[in-house]
Amino acid sequence: MPDSGQQLGRPRDSHIDHAVLAAARGLLAEVGYSRVTMDATAARAGVGKAAIYRRFGSKAELLFAASVHDMSIEPPPDTGSLRGDLHALARLIHERLGNPLARQVTPALMAEMVRSPELAARLQQTFVAQQRADFAALLERAERRGELPRPLDPALAHLLLSGPVFMALFAFQDPVDDTVLGEIASVIAAGLVARSAGPAPG
Amino acid sequence: MPDSGQQLGRPRDSHIDHAVLAAARGLLAEVGYSRVTMDATAARAGVGKAAIYRRFGSKAELLFAASVHDMSIEPPPDTGSLRGDLHALARLIHERLGNPLARQVTPALMAEMVRSPELAARLQQTFVAQQRADFAALLERAERRGELPRPLDPALAHLLLSGPVFMALFAFQDPVDDTVLGEIASVIAAGLVARSAGPAPG
Repeated sequence: MPDSGQQLGRPRDSHIDHAVLAAARGLLAEVGYSRVTMDATAARAGVGKAAIYRRFGSKAELLFAASVHDMSIEPPPDTGSLRGDLHALARLIHERLGNPLARQVTPALMAEMVRSPELAARLQQTFVAQQRADFAALLERAERRGELPRPLDPALAHLLLSGPVFMALFAFQDPVDDTVLGEIASVIAAGLVARSAGPAPG
Repeated sequence: MPDSGQQLGRPRDSHIDHAVLAAARGLLAEVGYSRVTMDATAARAGVGKAAIYRRFGSKAELLFAASVHDMSIEPPPDTGSLRGDLHALARLIHERLGNPLARQVTPALMAEMVRSPELAARLQQTFVAQQRADFAALLERAERRGELPRPLDPALAHLLLSGPVFMALFAFQDPVDDTVLGEIASVIAAGLVARSAGPAPG
């Protein structure tokens, strides 16, 4: 039993994480965002509801993790250039946001954030902070390579690369192909390099 | 009466346009996206429902026009540089998407587009095409100035500039200040110039 009190540490936690996220994905595909409940997720995962709330503060956070990404995302492997790294990250973002569950969950989450600034703040502190850490890692690599003379704000790079993918998928319902992802990465990489070499803002 | 059959041409149409959009805005503010109806809008505007359907194929299109922008948008005045023009356009996009009615309507529209590819296609052919025309005008100006040696795709420029603003507002519920809009414009302008001077894609 998952909550038997055994001291198995991280492996036991990973098992529950996996079961909860898999249960949420199954329910999402079957009944849709609005009808998924924490109770049904706990029952399907075979865990107590407390085990879910220890991991996710709300249904919105659970369904974000189940459909887009959890807190264990990593930056893509070093491709040897900022342009290559941004293209690889753009592909990851497109996969995460473009899968059928994410395309269902994301608009529902956005509508919920309009009504709940607390949810928006919470998602910022968790998933968005995790995404920004990946951008920070890519910018640090580019600094070490000498591509960026001056450090740049990871939050700006995050908006610049993710924004176009997000808008194509959710404002236009139009997945972009790999050529477009490469073009986006090329323009952003060239722009960040030029900006880093130019005068500081403000 | 608006539908009296008088041959007044454009001025009469503009009067109805204005009345319909003002009625839709009033209803949106009072009852919210889901409860606005074409009937109520027609009644408040003092026009027949047919007059609304001649202008807007669906409630979604009417409420987009009433909250974000109608079909009469124009590119911002020439600032003398691609960077300045993109900053001016980023400000317009932020105003259009960041006003309280647009922040209510946009997530509802996105959720509706998930269910209706026809609506997404229709919005692409109308409002999005109009937005792209403004980007095409900015890129043509930059070509005439000699800033862009090779023509660039307006759809790519549109995604690159609007995407970050859209994502900040709707994924993060976080309006961006004018310094950030200027930074976004600087990176995109530098990136487009570098891309235009480099090899053609593909």
